[in-house]
Amino acid sequence: MTDRVQVDIELGERGYAVQIGAGLVTDAQALRGALVPVLSGSEVMVVSNERVAPLYLETVREALSGYRVAEFLLPDGERFKTLAQFERLQSALIEARFSRRCTLIALGGGVVGDLTGFAAACYQRGVAFVQLPTTLLAQVDSSVGGKTAVNHPLGKNMIGAFHQPRCVLVDTGTLATLPSREFGAGMAEVIKYGAIADEQFFDWLETRATALAAQDPTALTRAIQRSVGVKAEIVAADEREAGRRALLNFGHTFGHALETCTHYEHYLHGEAVAVGMVLAARFGVASGNLAASIPERLGKLLRCFALPTEVDRALNVSAAAMLDAMGRDKKVVDGQLRLILLRDLGTAYVTDTVDAVELQTFLERELEPATGTHG
Amino acid sequence: MTDRVQVDIELGERGYAVQIGAGLVTDAQALRGALVPVLSGSEVMVVSNERVAPLYLETVREALSGYRVAEFLLPDGERFKTLAQFERLQSALIEARFSRRCTLIALGGGVVGDLTGFAAACYQRGVAFVQLPTTLLAQVDSSVGGKTAVNHPLGKNMIGAFHQPRCVLVDTGTLATLPSREFGAGMAEVIKYGAIADEQFFDWLETRATALAAQDPTALTRAIQRSVGVKAEIVAADEREAGRRALLNFGHTFGHALETCTHYEHYLHGEAVAVGMVLAARFGVASGNLAASIPERLGKLLRCFALPTEVDRALNVSAAAMLDAMGRDKKVVDGQLRLILLRDLGTAYVTDTVDAVELQTFLERELEPATGTHG
Repeated sequence: MTDRVQVDIELGERGYAVQIGAGLVTDAQALRGALVPVLSGSEVMVVSNERVAPLYLETVREALSGYRVAEFLLPDGERFKTLAQFERLQSALIEARFSRRCTLIALGGGVVGDLTGFAAACYQRGVAFVQLPTTLLAQVDSSVGGKTAVNHPLGKNMIGAFHQPRCVLVDTGTLATLPSREFGAGMAEVIKYGAIADEQFFDWLETRATALAAQDPTALTRAIQRSVGVKAEIVAADEREAGRRALLNFGHTFGHALETCTHYEHYLHGEAVAVGMVLAARFGVASGNLAASIPERLGKLLRCFALPTEVDRALNVSAAAMLDAMGRDKKVVDGQLRLILLRDLGTAYVTDTVDAVELQTFLERELEPATGTHG
Repeated sequence: MTDRVQVDIELGERGYAVQIGAGLVTDAQALRGALVPVLSGSEVMVVSNERVAPLYLETVREALSGYRVAEFLLPDGERFKTLAQFERLQSALIEARFSRRCTLIALGGGVVGDLTGFAAACYQRGVAFVQLPTTLLAQVDSSVGGKTAVNHPLGKNMIGAFHQPRCVLVDTGTLATLPSREFGAGMAEVIKYGAIADEQFFDWLETRATALAAQDPTALTRAIQRSVGVKAEIVAADEREAGRRALLNFGHTFGHALETCTHYEHYLHGEAVAVGMVLAARFGVASGNLAASIPERLGKLLRCFALPTEVDRALNVSAAAMLDAMGRDKKVVDGQLRLILLRDLGTAYVTDTVDAVELQTFLERELEPATGTHG
């Protein structure tokens, strides 16, 4: 057990701590010490998936000795973040006869965390839950802030709730077993925090890109801590996404649309966000509101983690399909598309006055079959 | 449009008004006047069922002229308060491309209100909704207080959320078209408020039983106003049912179990609650904590509205099946059954120390095939 750092999410009576440190999940004693103070009763449902469970479930079980523990496994993959799996989990909770004082533990990546959190929000109108995120993406993004959801065939995260966990335990040691493509997808969100809120952090990421790509533990801990810190500041100021929290969606409107158009099969979420951030930055340049060097720096940093920075032309995603998917996005308000754009590195803003024709022209150019030399 | 009365639900920024008066739903101008101030955007989804829509939907449409209105109809009946119908409604919202600023309007009884409220709680993680309850049960109970849910095959209201409406508009005129059995079911909840919280109101109900059974408008308005008032006081003190709010479940643990054991086919909810209240009172007498006259007065008043006050022996509900269903109830905490009992008329309390053997003996006696002369 190495040193831990802690980031507090300041949300009054719904506030909680994100603890970051090697061993927090992989060391049963450390895990027990962190869990016991936050479990609300004796009943615990551990939710994981078929890929993560063989790695850590035994340790979690050991940490919970003396509790009444039930387990629920999801198949692995975003396509199982469905209302059907949500219903299966509800059935498992009822069949276990778990009461309102039970606690759900999400052991896995964003799919496990989002679905478990939503199930906790709805089971008997709300029970406690804890996040043990095992992917970088979940550690720096989805496990913090209380957004929970399942997907609908017509749109990502369309059905969900705001439901804060009791605590989030981030074990950097779990990243050692993470496929490198998923590590990269997590780095896309880390880079996003720099881009939208902290230019110094973006600069630091540029200088430490090689160390981070090699998963240097010290660099990794700092990157996660600062990422969670940025998210914590934004969430504390705007828990239910009435305003500032929307900035966290930088790259996500384009990214979600890209995921929808490719049926969630081609891109990992973080990869789609990487493309989406570059598209958003390039759209800013195209509309004359951002220096051309910004999407270039952004693209270069993303590529250090083997992330895509433009739409794969072989996918034949049309501008019309993208616009259609963007029109279904949750960020649409009263029919008006809302985009998050950059003013500069470290400064993002929300705009409701996107010109539809300008956006269409931009997307047509970006998605045209001829492979251009963008960025 | 006759005089209105208003009961305020004091929940800070989630607070709202329950308006009660003839014409509030059946008069388009009155309805428009009440709705416009609470609609959050231009998109409105009116949710109703196949029985209620022909009666009032045209008026609601007229009241909403100028808004972008979509409609969603449920089949009629408690058995459609399911996750499958919830999913259909989510799909309708997405297909209509409704944004986070849309408002759902629940036009109907408790099933429509509970399902609509839960859909509003989850669509894009929460949108606004309004209750237009058209049954007495919904007017005095389910439309007020923010409890929303769908049923699970293994238990009623197991999946849901606390989500407060923007307002509740109670039109006493809608009761004229209500089948008399459903009117009685609503009176069971009215009587419950007297039993748990207001002895004077219980006395008044006894003296005005004949007028109420004849749907005298003045008596009816007063009965609804006081019922909502009792509920408002309890909900304001305990929004998320940590303590006092549990008192509202008087008769419901037995009642829900009875509904489960009879597959929601034999009893209306209010009818099951009527039987459940008498069972709870009789259990209080059996355990030596309540005067024998109380279940007698309770039974007598309930029968004024043609409500059942004991389990129909022809149904062959066993004590074992009842106990099993009670063990799955949401009010079970860490495996310990929780019951709401009366200390006296107008005074209820929560107990976690029910003796399982005593309860079993009681139920065996109450449910034995021989028709006893109870009460």
